[in-house]
Amino acid sequence: MTSQANVTWIAADWGTTNLRIWALDTAGNTIAHRCSAKGMGTLAKNEFEAALLELVDDLVKADGTTPVVVCGMAGSRQGWAEAPYKTTPCAPPSIDDATIVNATDPRLDVRILPGIKQITPADVMRGEETQITGFLADTPNFSGTLCLPGTHTKWVALENGVVTRFRTFMTGETFALLSKQSVLRHGLSDRDLDADAFKSATMDIFKTPQALAAELFGVRAAGLIADLSPDAARGRLSGLLIGAELAAVKDDFDLSAVTILGSDHIAKAYASALGCLGYEATPLDAETITLKGLALAYSSYSKAPS
Amino acid sequence: MTSQANVTWIAADWGTTNLRIWALDTAGNTIAHRCSAKGMGTLAKNEFEAALLELVDDLVKADGTTPVVVCGMAGSRQGWAEAPYKTTPCAPPSIDDATIVNATDPRLDVRILPGIKQITPADVMRGEETQITGFLADTPNFSGTLCLPGTHTKWVALENGVVTRFRTFMTGETFALLSKQSVLRHGLSDRDLDADAFKSATMDIFKTPQALAAELFGVRAAGLIADLSPDAARGRLSGLLIGAELAAVKDDFDLSAVTILGSDHIAKAYASALGCLGYEATPLDAETITLKGLALAYSSYSKAPS
Repeated sequence: MTSQANVTWIAADWGTTNLRIWALDTAGNTIAHRCSAKGMGTLAKNEFEAALLELVDDLVKADGTTPVVVCGMAGSRQGWAEAPYKTTPCAPPSIDDATIVNATDPRLDVRILPGIKQITPADVMRGEETQITGFLADTPNFSGTLCLPGTHTKWVALENGVVTRFRTFMTGETFALLSKQSVLRHGLSDRDLDADAFKSATMDIFKTPQALAAELFGVRAAGLIADLSPDAARGRLSGLLIGAELAAVKDDFDLSAVTILGSDHIAKAYASALGCLGYEATPLDAETITLKGLALAYSSYSKAPS
Repeated sequence: MTSQANVTWIAADWGTTNLRIWALDTAGNTIAHRCSAKGMGTLAKNEFEAALLELVDDLVKADGTTPVVVCGMAGSRQGWAEAPYKTTPCAPPSIDDATIVNATDPRLDVRILPGIKQITPADVMRGEETQITGFLADTPNFSGTLCLPGTHTKWVALENGVVTRFRTFMTGETFALLSKQSVLRHGLSDRDLDADAFKSATMDIFKTPQALAAELFGVRAAGLIADLSPDAARGRLSGLLIGAELAAVKDDFDLSAVTILGSDHIAKAYASALGCLGYEATPLDAETITLKGLALAYSSYSKAPS
């Protein structure tokens, strides 16, 4: 049984495909953690408040207002309310940079944290900036490289706690499209990939990244005429795409000591790829770090003047 | 009105998505040209004969047999009957290399031409070999580079009429997936691409192909924060992918004088990309060449011993 009396504030990570909330007490303990599939991509502007209330209606105080601190795509132009980007170089946004949403329900005081944009080369992030905030909570003056793996992986250079530049790679989305919908799907397993095939493809293409376009169809052809197994084909495709990404990354980011904000199978693939190229990578749990970032933002919360 | 009395033989180009036939008389004139969407990908093994008869039933001689010369995916393992690949280096296959199909209808004598495979690097073609045959009809001792544009573009090196090596690029399929199904679709027009954006992206990435993975998401980001127009975004994505392909191709194929077997919008994009990089490219009509290749194969046809 959750106790609404103890809920001090709500943290929300509102991405394109999912909404995840945590209800927290004064000491920062999680009283409830809930998810729904009502991501930004499924909602019209006037549907966000109801989608949030579906998850938090029984958690917020009946009298008075409960602060809700949100990060992610809910702050995009197509989201609930636009939270204009901060621009690099910059520290990750704080609650002072947040957009205050005009919620209908008087029990809610919703603040959406902005993302970060980079003018040249053009790039944007929404949600990842709060993971960076969470990472910096323990090491505020960090200088180095962060890797935030996902459908769109972000590589981020930090100097003294300031985001100096970043770059987004569509490798995860490209892998999903090629493995499920292109001609390559006929020769690929749905199971775990073959680690040896992954590593050797990573190392091959890291040395000659310009060959990527030539190597992709070869994954199918080798299945047809050279007995490449479906598991090995899956490993090779993943290794080719991640290896090509790392070849591009190494020109712009210091790979000598990378911190990976993630510990799922995508994060593990990056750690494995970096490892076989001789780079050290430290993985951290992404969800923990996101919550930590939202909590740091909330720690400077003050009620808006009415 | 077609006259079945005049039909000497049938030419068929049977790909993954379409079946196209020509009915020809002794002089090589086309009496009928028909298409259906019954490509190899839509058919079980026992459905091919009926799919063919749907198009040719009224064209073949009622008494006696009509030769049907087929190229393309109908000869794959999942097709009507497997026509085992020839192996590079080799001349394109002739009718002597064709697989004779056991058709049920005694009016049909179906021969499927094989494709070509390459052991290292692993690669395969089915259908394109017959275009090469058609191209060589007028220049049997050709040495140089052919580009066969399509969903899967093939680059082919010929020496004295012999296919010495080739390489397949999934650029067309990748463009279709990224432009219609990835996050990039939000910022892309469905109309013609912007030619200037196409050319400058081609030239950029040709010089630094290892940056491809980094540049893709930038197409979306530039639409969000730098006013890149949807037409320019479409041009830039196409130019990035074709430019990266050409950067890989130039290491293995002589680009100084390329013949492009194609004249559709994909072929035009390749011609434009080669042109802005300073290479000369001659386009030819693909369908004419396919028919010419099938006709050359038919010219050595003789009835199988019964």
